[in-house]
Amino acid sequence: MTNRLFFDVNAHESVYELIIKEQESVGYYHLPTQDISYLSTYKEDFEKHTKEIKHLVVIGIGGSSLGLKAIYRTLKNVKKFSRKIHFLESTDPIAIDSELEKIDLQKAHFFVISKSGTTIETIAIYKYVLNLLQEKQIEDAYRFTYVTDAGSALEQHATTKPSFCLHVHKNVGGRFSVLSSVGLAPLSLIEVDVKALLQGASEIKNSFFEAGYMRDILLKKATYYAKNSFAYNINALFVYSESFKYFCEWYVQLWGESLGKKQLHSSFNVGLTPVGLIGPKDQHSFLQLIVEGLRDKSVTFLKIDSFNKDIDIPAISLKSLEKLDSINELSFNSLINLQADAVIESLLKKGDIPIDTIVLEQIDEKNIGKFIFYYELLTSLVAKLMGVDAYGQPGVEESKEILKEKLKDRRLL
Amino acid sequence: MTNRLFFDVNAHESVYELIIKEQESVGYYHLPTQDISYLSTYKEDFEKHTKEIKHLVVIGIGGSSLGLKAIYRTLKNVKKFSRKIHFLESTDPIAIDSELEKIDLQKAHFFVISKSGTTIETIAIYKYVLNLLQEKQIEDAYRFTYVTDAGSALEQHATTKPSFCLHVHKNVGGRFSVLSSVGLAPLSLIEVDVKALLQGASEIKNSFFEAGYMRDILLKKATYYAKNSFAYNINALFVYSESFKYFCEWYVQLWGESLGKKQLHSSFNVGLTPVGLIGPKDQHSFLQLIVEGLRDKSVTFLKIDSFNKDIDIPAISLKSLEKLDSINELSFNSLINLQADAVIESLLKKGDIPIDTIVLEQIDEKNIGKFIFYYELLTSLVAKLMGVDAYGQPGVEESKEILKEKLKDRRLL
Repeated sequence: MTNRLFFDVNAHESVYELIIKEQESVGYYHLPTQDISYLSTYKEDFEKHTKEIKHLVVIGIGGSSLGLKAIYRTLKNVKKFSRKIHFLESTDPIAIDSELEKIDLQKAHFFVISKSGTTIETIAIYKYVLNLLQEKQIEDAYRFTYVTDAGSALEQHATTKPSFCLHVHKNVGGRFSVLSSVGLAPLSLIEVDVKALLQGASEIKNSFFEAGYMRDILLKKATYYAKNSFAYNINALFVYSESFKYFCEWYVQLWGESLGKKQLHSSFNVGLTPVGLIGPKDQHSFLQLIVEGLRDKSVTFLKIDSFNKDIDIPAISLKSLEKLDSINELSFNSLINLQADAVIESLLKKGDIPIDTIVLEQIDEKNIGKFIFYYELLTSLVAKLMGVDAYGQPGVEESKEILKEKLKDRRLL
Repeated sequence: MTNRLFFDVNAHESVYELIIKEQESVGYYHLPTQDISYLSTYKEDFEKHTKEIKHLVVIGIGGSSLGLKAIYRTLKNVKKFSRKIHFLESTDPIAIDSELEKIDLQKAHFFVISKSGTTIETIAIYKYVLNLLQEKQIEDAYRFTYVTDAGSALEQHATTKPSFCLHVHKNVGGRFSVLSSVGLAPLSLIEVDVKALLQGASEIKNSFFEAGYMRDILLKKATYYAKNSFAYNINALFVYSESFKYFCEWYVQLWGESLGKKQLHSSFNVGLTPVGLIGPKDQHSFLQLIVEGLRDKSVTFLKIDSFNKDIDIPAISLKSLEKLDSINELSFNSLINLQADAVIESLLKKGDIPIDTIVLEQIDEKNIGKFIFYYELLTSLVAKLMGVDAYGQPGVEESKEILKEKLKDRRLL
């Protein structure tokens, strides 16, 4: 992974000390070097107690699904997996129904993932699934894995039947939890190289903390984003790979929910708005707005150097379309990267759009691990520089309380 | 469809006259009342000349796929279709390969959709598909429908073999073309009620032009957005329906590409940034940024009054989770809408976040037609008020030119 910045700024070096200190109380920094023997134990138990499981169904929302989904969907087109992972993450009845239609319940194992253990969407769907299993007289022993905080009500509940229960690592928030049991437990049951994932994350971590290449670049980028957070209040991530689509959603949560906060010292509302874009599709959509719109956006381009599969444009000359013979015998891998380069070049010419480029060698666990940890570190740095707490989400509590009241009112009717 | 604004402004009434005038040269205004006999003729010809077609494969990008995809994907979970529609819309080799794997080429018919006729992504994929058919010795007579501007090179090309060719309606730009042949031709080959789609669009059109309910509301909303385009430079569309996910992408193109422009009288860069959100998922992601972040966003909530399928949360009391009995026997339809209401209520309390709500009765062609035309009209109005030309996309030309040069350089190597 390389990252090149096309803007300059004097990095605010002292933020590094704050991050060093923060490691004592923030758990995600330690995930790359975690002891993963618990995963082997879990996998052994799982294979012993279950049989013929072909569908892993994740019941979880937000931080309990976005990271896992991103890794799974990114890898599934380049690796063959013996089990499918499905996601039940909405209270939309049509979505629940049509996702369940794809699943052979006899061959399904369910993950109920909720840090707090009382996430309303998750428990609602869990109840629905329990009822469905009962209706179809499907044995529910060892049918569930619960992933939750130690001591939660869900952990208590898990003890009421034969099942698996794993704890979310200590002090790890939902949106920083993809490399904890939340992501790793389901991934360890399919052919994902979990070690390589953590290895990739470790490399970025070490490069940052041991004054490698990443220290300088992350400090600079974070400083620039924080310093210009009013002028450039939108940060687009433009990935030239359909496979990375779900990492855009993961990025949106990580960035938006961590940085959109009241400032700690002023209670002033600050924030940076994440936008995920996919190339070349969004050249025919959002790009016009970047090129000619208000100068309120920075853009990070993500390119894959070598796509794991490649195909060529055949040397066919089409009648009346001979002009387009220029693409003949070009590989699609080259074409998509040339398209990215052309857009980058055209934006650089404008001179007032902050741009940087990330290049991953290929799509695999190691590169994904790097990408994840890079963005997590960047988020923590920008949060420190903007004077916000990256790790809570106090703003969403009020609507939860209002919902509770509405549910209470309904019971009284 | 109802739309309620929770903000007030004196509508800039005179923009209405500009829209009346614009209708002479802008084609999309006339699509709701188009003569659709060409579709019956096309369908008859199609069924006569092809057999056993189960897969309709759209080769197109941007305006040539986003609207069609949105309609198809929104309806496919509530209606049964006898044919599937697939989309080849990226130059990502992994994406092309994995989409083609799902298709039985013998039973596939391809739509090559390009207004200009020379869209590089479209022609590259078209060449690839042609070669594949030849390799597999699959007959290519009547294997393709071309949808393009009258007189384009692609139309010329289409005459070289037995095939179907349809014109994009006159003066209709890509992102406003979903109700033209671009969207309607493929939809007419599956069980989509095209008439109801146009009927819905007509109702909104008439309500606006005949001084109905929509006139007032659209003028007010457009005025507010344009007037505050610097303060609130981000407009989120928060849809509480997974089915509407692809309409978010359609909205992003329509809004971003139409409004991100140099102002006509000043050549100053202006624009409004669209963000698509899905509820309740994004309550666990982007919502925190709306609630506590910088006050730079307006939010439009979309609710479905009555989901076409509904399921209930069973009356199960879970050990240790008895607190959540409050959701028992509630339908998911009610839950998702209560969740939306709770979020709306909590945001209204802030007092400084411009909010409006759109409610559709259910998910069907008529409501979709209304939604589409509502957003198209709103876009045209905001563009006029911001002093930009909604219908071009001059900003993306430069990168196309750079790409051409890069391709030329490569041929010289």
